Amino acid sequence: MIIPVEGLPEVTLAFNLGKAIAGNVQLTDGDIVAVSQKVVSKSEGRVVRLDETDPGNDAVALAARTDKDPRLVQHILNESRSLIRVDEERGILITETHHGFICANAGIDQSNTTGPDEAILLPLDPDGSARRIRVELETASGVKAAVVVTDSFGRAWRHGQTEIAIGCAGIDPLDDWRGQGDQRGRELTATVIATADQVAAASDLVRSKTDGVPAIVVRGLDRHVTEDDGPGCAVQLRDSGDDLFR
Amino acid sequence: MIIPVEGLPEVTLAFNLGKAIAGNVQLTDGDIVAVSQKVVSKSEGRVVRLDETDPGNDAVALAARTDKDPRLVQHILNESRSLIRVDEERGILITETHHGFICANAGIDQSNTTGPDEAILLPLDPDGSARRIRVELETASGVKAAVVVTDSFGRAWRHGQTEIAIGCAGIDPLDDWRGQGDQRGRELTATVIATADQVAAASDLVRSKTDGVPAIVVRGLDRHVTEDDGPGCAVQLRDSGDDLFR
Repeated sequence: MIIPVEGLPEVTLAFNLGKAIAGNVQLTDGDIVAVSQKVVSKSEGRVVRLDETDPGNDAVALAARTDKDPRLVQHILNESRSLIRVDEERGILITETHHGFICANAGIDQSNTTGPDEAILLPLDPDGSARRIRVELETASGVKAAVVVTDSFGRAWRHGQTEIAIGCAGIDPLDDWRGQGDQRGRELTATVIATADQVAAASDLVRSKTDGVPAIVVRGLDRHVTEDDGPGCAVQLRDSGDDLFR
Repeated sequence: MIIPVEGLPEVTLAFNLGKAIAGNVQLTDGDIVAVSQKVVSKSEGRVVRLDETDPGNDAVALAARTDKDPRLVQHILNESRSLIRVDEERGILITETHHGFICANAGIDQSNTTGPDEAILLPLDPDGSARRIRVELETASGVKAAVVVTDSFGRAWRHGQTEIAIGCAGIDPLDDWRGQGDQRGRELTATVIATADQVAAASDLVRSKTDGVPAIVVRGLDRHVTEDDGPGCAVQLRDSGDDLFR
């Protein structure tokens, strides 16, 4: 069952997301709470003002090549460890963030901001954010739910974005079946299921982009919820040497 | 609500999947039925025997480079229009299939086969498969459900596979919000949601790799179900000129 959490107020700095979520939905053991990156970032002050941004030479040059706002490009460069692709014609910048995510514009988002000249950065440590919200949920409700921090990313080769997990706590993001048998006992050699990403995608199905539901409870997946916080989404990132597409 | 369809028998050539699914679950208007590629392929005879495969010189050479079975490599080449990446060290072949999917081993699967030396190819036309199953479902139940044919694909940059849509009917695989406003009326410039892929991912959450549930009903997404079959998943494929990662 996938339950949107209605009625959350506007999120501001130091807002207790877990408490607000627990106050608006009856949580139960084994729940997974998917929280949109945007409200997590807002609660952590990861919001910048473009009208207070002074872009440097590199940002100005790259902005001219891609026909983007140099102030936004400055923040993209600040948030990135490397440029992966620059598509001048379509104005696309794909970068690797300091966390290791590969996505457009370092994941910086200008939709659904509070002010007109604002942009929202990814959380500094999305796994840490998930752990923090997990504690907040438990403190407010007594329930030790799992938490997945989600964001919509584009993909290579396929049009359209899917919601993926950028941080998690209380759920192993990868369900590793390698070495186990299939229905006929044949060994599965390559099966690692990206459970947290699939939870993120499922959560996105119950909202529209305009209705602003930033938290969703995915219920009935108790078998994926762990006592420990677990390794977080950092383990999902391929090392550059292990990655055929950068 | 996500409902696994229990009790389906072993699928053989010309098996009426829609009738069997409709006989094992009470369908209702607005349902989306996710069907695993493997049973679709089996029902369409897309099964080959490796012990009856005579690999050619190209397959033998590529198999030697990647330490793979030359008979499997012959089928990978048969099913592909181009090689995208060859990782000799890890024995990985990423190809573009004749449909335009970019995936490992042209999507050929050797797990959960019926015979020991069998391999299962992707359907020739997964959108056509989805349309066919949609008709079968309607004939058997009177309900015009949407159908998504799903398979698990790996991704660039991230470990783990997610279930994605390789074919669909009765659902638009892409929900395009470009040009519409966000909550504050700011135009969304890049938001295209891969709805069918997210339905596929959600469907995968209710099964394990060994319990063999090949059909799952995703209920409550009536707003995504269309009277027409729609464009199918073919529209999700990026043109090579429009793709930064091949």
